[in-house]
Amino acid sequence: MTVSDVVELEGHIIDSGLMERAFTVVMELGGEFDIEEFRVGTSKDEESYCRMRVIADDEGALHPILHELHQSGATLAAPTDATLTPAPADNVVPDGFYSTTNHPTDVRVDDEWVPVGNIEMDCAIVVDRDGEVSAETKVLNGIEAGDLVVTGDAGIRVKPPERPRDASGPFGFMQGGVSAERPSESLIRDIAEAIAETKAQGGTVLCVAGPAVIHSGGGPGLARLVREGYVDAISAGNGFAVHDMERSMYGTSLGMDVETMEHPRKGHKHHIYTISEVIRAGGIEAAVEEGLITEGVMHECVENDRDFVLAGSIRDDGPLPDTITDAVEAQNAIRGQAREADLVLMLSSLLHSVAVGNCLPSTTRTVCVDINPATVTQLLDRGSAQAVGMVTDVGTFVPMLAEELLE
Amino acid sequence: MTVSDVVELEGHIIDSGLMERAFTVVMELGGEFDIEEFRVGTSKDEESYCRMRVIADDEGALHPILHELHQSGATLAAPTDATLTPAPADNVVPDGFYSTTNHPTDVRVDDEWVPVGNIEMDCAIVVDRDGEVSAETKVLNGIEAGDLVVTGDAGIRVKPPERPRDASGPFGFMQGGVSAERPSESLIRDIAEAIAETKAQGGTVLCVAGPAVIHSGGGPGLARLVREGYVDAISAGNGFAVHDMERSMYGTSLGMDVETMEHPRKGHKHHIYTISEVIRAGGIEAAVEEGLITEGVMHECVENDRDFVLAGSIRDDGPLPDTITDAVEAQNAIRGQAREADLVLMLSSLLHSVAVGNCLPSTTRTVCVDINPATVTQLLDRGSAQAVGMVTDVGTFVPMLAEELLE
Amino acid sequence: MTVSDVVELEGHIIDSGLMERAFTVVMELGGEFDIEEFRVGTSKDEESYCRMRVIADDEGALHPILHELHQSGATLAAPTDATLTPAPADNVVPDGFYSTTNHPTDVRVDDEWVPVGNIEMDCAIVVDRDGEVSAETKVLNGIEAGDLVVTGDAGIRVKPPERPRDASGPFGFMQGGVSAERPSESLIRDIAEAIAETKAQGGTVLCVAGPAVIHSGGGPGLARLVREGYVDAISAGNGFAVHDMERSMYGTSLGMDVETMEHPRKGHKHHIYTISEVIRAGGIEAAVEEGLITEGVMHECVENDRDFVLAGSIRDDGPLPDTITDAVEAQNAIRGQAREADLVLMLSSLLHSVAVGNCLPSTTRTVCVDINPATVTQLLDRGSAQAVGMVTDVGTFVPMLAEELLE
Amino acid sequence: MTVSDVVELEGHIIDSGLMERAFTVVMELGGEFDIEEFRVGTSKDEESYCRMRVIADDEGALHPILHELHQSGATLAAPTDATLTPAPADNVVPDGFYSTTNHPTDVRVDDEWVPVGNIEMDCAIVVDRDGEVSAETKVLNGIEAGDLVVTGDAGIRVKPPERPRDASGPFGFMQGGVSAERPSESLIRDIAEAIAETKAQGGTVLCVAGPAVIHSGGGPGLARLVREGYVDAISAGNGFAVHDMERSMYGTSLGMDVETMEHPRKGHKHHIYTISEVIRAGGIEAAVEEGLITEGVMHECVENDRDFVLAGSIRDDGPLPDTITDAVEAQNAIRGQAREADLVLMLSSLLHSVAVGNCLPSTTRTVCVDINPATVTQLLDRGSAQAVGMVTDVGTFVPMLAEELLE
Repeated sequence: MTVSDVVELEGHIIDSGLMERAFTVVMELGGEFDIEEFRVGTSKDEESYCRMRVIADDEGALHPILHELHQSGATLAAPTDATLTPAPADNVVPDGFYSTTNHPTDVRVDDEWVPVGNIEMDCAIVVDRDGEVSAETKVLNGIEAGDLVVTGDAGIRVKPPERPRDASGPFGFMQGGVSAERPSESLIRDIAEAIAETKAQGGTVLCVAGPAVIHSGGGPGLARLVREGYVDAISAGNGFAVHDMERSMYGTSLGMDVETMEHPRKGHKHHIYTISEVIRAGGIEAAVEEGLITEGVMHECVENDRDFVLAGSIRDDGPLPDTITDAVEAQNAIRGQAREADLVLMLSSLLHSVAVGNCLPSTTRTVCVDINPATVTQLLDRGSAQAVGMVTDVGTFVPMLAEELLE
Repeated sequence: MTVSDVVELEGHIIDSGLMERAFTVVMELGGEFDIEEFRVGTSKDEESYCRMRVIADDEGALHPILHELHQSGATLAAPTDATLTPAPADNVVPDGFYSTTNHPTDVRVDDEWVPVGNIEMDCAIVVDRDGEVSAETKVLNGIEAGDLVVTGDAGIRVKPPERPRDASGPFGFMQGGVSAERPSESLIRDIAEAIAETKAQGGTVLCVAGPAVIHSGGGPGLARLVREGYVDAISAGNGFAVHDMERSMYGTSLGMDVETMEHPRKGHKHHIYTISEVIRAGGIEAAVEEGLITEGVMHECVENDRDFVLAGSIRDDGPLPDTITDAVEAQNAIRGQAREADLVLMLSSLLHSVAVGNCLPSTTRTVCVDINPATVTQLLDRGSAQAVGMVTDVGTFVPMLAEELLE
Repeated sequence: MTVSDVVELEGHIIDSGLMERAFTVVMELGGEFDIEEFRVGTSKDEESYCRMRVIADDEGALHPILHELHQSGATLAAPTDATLTPAPADNVVPDGFYSTTNHPTDVRVDDEWVPVGNIEMDCAIVVDRDGEVSAETKVLNGIEAGDLVVTGDAGIRVKPPERPRDASGPFGFMQGGVSAERPSESLIRDIAEAIAETKAQGGTVLCVAGPAVIHSGGGPGLARLVREGYVDAISAGNGFAVHDMERSMYGTSLGMDVETMEHPRKGHKHHIYTISEVIRAGGIEAAVEEGLITEGVMHECVENDRDFVLAGSIRDDGPLPDTITDAVEAQNAIRGQAREADLVLMLSSLLHSVAVGNCLPSTTRTVCVDINPATVTQLLDRGSAQAVGMVTDVGTFVPMLAEELLE
Repeated sequence: MTVSDVVELEGHIIDSGLMERAFTVVMELGGEFDIEEFRVGTSKDEESYCRMRVIADDEGALHPILHELHQSGATLAAPTDATLTPAPADNVVPDGFYSTTNHPTDVRVDDEWVPVGNIEMDCAIVVDRDGEVSAETKVLNGIEAGDLVVTGDAGIRVKPPERPRDASGPFGFMQGGVSAERPSESLIRDIAEAIAETKAQGGTVLCVAGPAVIHSGGGPGLARLVREGYVDAISAGNGFAVHDMERSMYGTSLGMDVETMEHPRKGHKHHIYTISEVIRAGGIEAAVEEGLITEGVMHECVENDRDFVLAGSIRDDGPLPDTITDAVEAQNAIRGQAREADLVLMLSSLLHSVAVGNCLPSTTRTVCVDINPATVTQLLDRGSAQAVGMVTDVGTFVPMLAEELLE
């Protein structure tokens, strides 16, 4: 005695890997399948279609298979409305809540497919039936008692992004995963072109930056990119901002060669001083305005009115008055930046890049640059079809990128 | 026309590297020296003494040399009282404030050397003259307007720990830096012996643990060490606690083989569920008490009344009600744990280990274990003479350590 | 005006990723396709079939597409005999020679499919028509003038291994790629079971070992595995053998604690002595027989008649008389070991593991263990469906593996 | 009852770390010391002197202490002639042979200090008394029966390089160890200046290069440096030369965009073809001369008569006729290059860099560039006071270095 259900897959389901993944899911989770219909797209632009019955020993075995298939883009053949269950309490999800992917998703309510707003992975979907039906993702700490949360897998449709049909154009290189094997200069040119194209299309470029950008000498280049409008927003931590402003405050005024920074501990006093002075001034904007900070990334952000979010962490000194010390608040600020971004450039910051990456839909273009291949791999491993990683030194990457874009 | 000042060095100043460092500091910073007196300890247990005049072109050049010499353990030959300057505002240090090392330090007030309490690096020293004179470190965010902050380098005495005269005994191996070259099993035995000895002496063992401890299968071993009292306190993040409790909640009850965890994304729903259920229960202690969490590290902490601090970060899901989301508050909680600890075992957590390490005096024994050699190097590079690093897999380290200690 | 050709794909072409790869190849290399027939296997054990016309602008564009499709397992719909062209000189391949993959391959000669012997990647295929037709791979330095070398892509059939239908059994875990996320102890148990099963089936286990096995304390464990017959052959370098024998010669006889090896340079003199003494004795076997070497991996190899190959390199001291200093000769010896092996265990040796891996067909089971994730990734990235990598410390891995197998 | 001996230390023994090391050696190896005389250099340019009696329980304990002290630069107070013992057989050293460091060394013969030629670490010292007395290092495979080999530690004087008194000038930055914290552009400028200065002084620059130089796009830059005479010699492997020439042969002629090299396996056929064609031509020089190879590093070497050594390894394809396949022969060729070099630039090649580094005296300037910090650390960890490491991407490093030097 077995149980079964029928799912459909549609689109470029072969070359996107969806069919392979569907078969693999069924077999790995111990199920069987019966292909009831299969129409292959006979040419490059024609889509394919598959209707597949999934068979398992019992409901307990069938359910996880169907769940994984859903997450991968399959839909139940006979769509029914999603099940909506009120959240039992603030910050608590009902049993069997549907946990989102980062792919575009629709939810079926009253026989209509409603797009889910603010797609982000590992969230719940909350449906608002007051007035026109709408749906959006909510993280756990956003759930309120009584929110109508989608439970089960029925009535949900996920569209993983497909491999673009055409690999030419400025974004064509963004299908390559980690490009350790690619000539560095030509890849930097490709990234510059993608940024330029994003700006030409009126898009927003968000740069996530770690302190290594400043240590390695990438500060002036990034400051120019901010000034010239190639970078619209900065997402960083307290340390990044302090290092950047310390360079402005002590780079030459004390006669010490900050250029060399030979011993990590040396000049740490400047670090504390910088924070102390910025606190005294009343914050970064005030410090720029009173002439304390005269150059660098933070200076350009203030002067050119670019958005920045500084998220606090437990290893911070200070912190600066601008640093958001509460992790939930900081996450919400980051979420806002992520939703605005059309292209995200992640530079040498595992913690902040993960935090931003967690909030991005799989359709946002992402470039991740780090000297540690493990960091690049970890960041790319999130199912975006439009992400590219580069294993290189930000201290040479940023100047070369700035030269490509500005000269 | 030059300026000069006289400093003294005392102790095992040759084999501790202090004399070498002193000469190097003077030469690197462009000064000259004149050794006025030098008495070498003629045998192993006899101390040495050096009085050295430091010469530089002007006060601007002399000052940083004296500062670095101070930080390394030299003292002004003619000790004067430390200069005390009131802090101009909350969270603001006066000009020229003295920034601490992590070594034991005394400050001279009213012609008496007063020990500085709660030694921690990159802090200010605040002197309390109400009643009996006392001094202690304060981080920037703890400074209050009017606090008497030490400025300049006069009247300060730093004692970097010396190389122990005797390398035998259970802590003898803790002078080796990163021990990648050492046979893994014998090093694990040494670490086990150091933990046992610390406990035998009534000491406190703090374990800083990352989620990889759970992923790699080290959870049951660590839980036993907590239960049996070899680990007195846990310092970790939200993710560690959630993974640990998810293992308890879903490891077997849902029939899914948590053991394999083949796909990092799989079972992520359990992650959210775990948080949601613990929120519903009212926190970790309540969840243990109502039988939701029946095993694992957090369970043992609650059952055996071990202290734990969960510090929040911007990449957290949830977070759990027990997680301290404010970075400054979390840092203060970590600071409390660090001050109690006699031996700190850091397991696969760069962020939390750095945060704890920042608060430790150089005299606290530290063992750092990570599979990434860069992490180990970064954590050890803080001037502790009693730290050891091991580049290994926590998934094999923890079970082998538990077996050494418990069987 | 376009050109085209028809290829066929057969087998579990969807879940093995072959269809996806075929579509991707055509699109990435600028071609078009027209699916002429597609039959999907409707259940898990039923194979699928696809006949696809590939269209390109001209022959110059079509050829590389067909070549890549071939290499991936597609065959020309109308099979013709392979083109055989005599090699113009020793060590020289004719224009357009077919360069092999590491997958099982047949070549069509006189209207018959002939299996290609000794499959190895990046070789030429040489057909012998004297007597019964046969074919085998030859590396460039094995090619002789007049050898009948296959040129072009016609008449060749490649069978990439398919994903096993059933993931249970002792080898089931060997589909997971790099298992950094997996609990270390349970993965070691799986590997032990796979070794035991291979031996139970009468198979041969080859261990590729780097000097880190000895440094990290894995020597005694590996020696036991050799003695007890779980490892049939050793492939290593001069350094591995010297370190292993140095441990036997100087581990206790000189009273120095070799266990600790704190300073890499210390005891280096023993390294040279060991080589010198083994040279004096006349080689490793003689040194064991005269009682110079009384324990360790090399000792067990000699005593139990296990095959070992020591391949020389430019960083060797000595070398030992047993070390094959010529790279081509050494490669041939390694090739012989690789062809015999049913399961290869690669331990902490990038150079030797690459050399062995280059000679392995994609059907040989491979386990790669290294503490550096980049090494594991590089070694697994060779298209074997039966390879698994583990990022761990060999110093804990080898003792735990030995315990699993022997106790 | 104890035994003792007296050693002397002279020079800048404090700031070079020699005194610290001497005390540490005695204490770690269980001895005692008695300082009989100590004169400290009272100013920067004045040397210090120490006469120290070393005491141990017996000769067996005293000997290793004296040996380590020797190797660190201490000398026996009452110098006697070195003991010379004939080698008992080819490739065999006599009992108690002295194993060299990589520091300048003298040996005492007939009451005269004779400098040891061709200093290289882990060698024996062979004295030639026919005619004028001379001494030089020999590796084990160079020892001939009857060679007069130095045994014991008496009559040997080692001079570890001291920290330069002055850190300014083009080589001043070469004391920094791994400079991960330094701004990349400014460090590249320093390296360019050191190369230019070496050439201006008539020195020889040797570049050790791995295949990643070509993959990452550094080939054209390195070719220009060879052509313009900033690089006098290349030390590499078979793979480097093949990738470089493949780029010349197939970069544009086949219309394929070699620039992108997206899939490591793709174009591997070109790799084999390149080797095959160069074999047909009769070698690299012949291939350049017949116009087969028209650009790239190897082309510039041939055209400008720069020395190159290609050392074979077991992972090579081919190999090329120019590749030295015998490891001992290849080592000797590398040794010749190393002895000529005044500055060695190591680019992304662990194996070849170790092989070259093994042959270098500690006085040769060395710059090591790799994206993997572990590689850089390993290469620098050899006691050279004039070595610097940079953790960066050779694909950006080489073009930036070429631009600094050539524009």
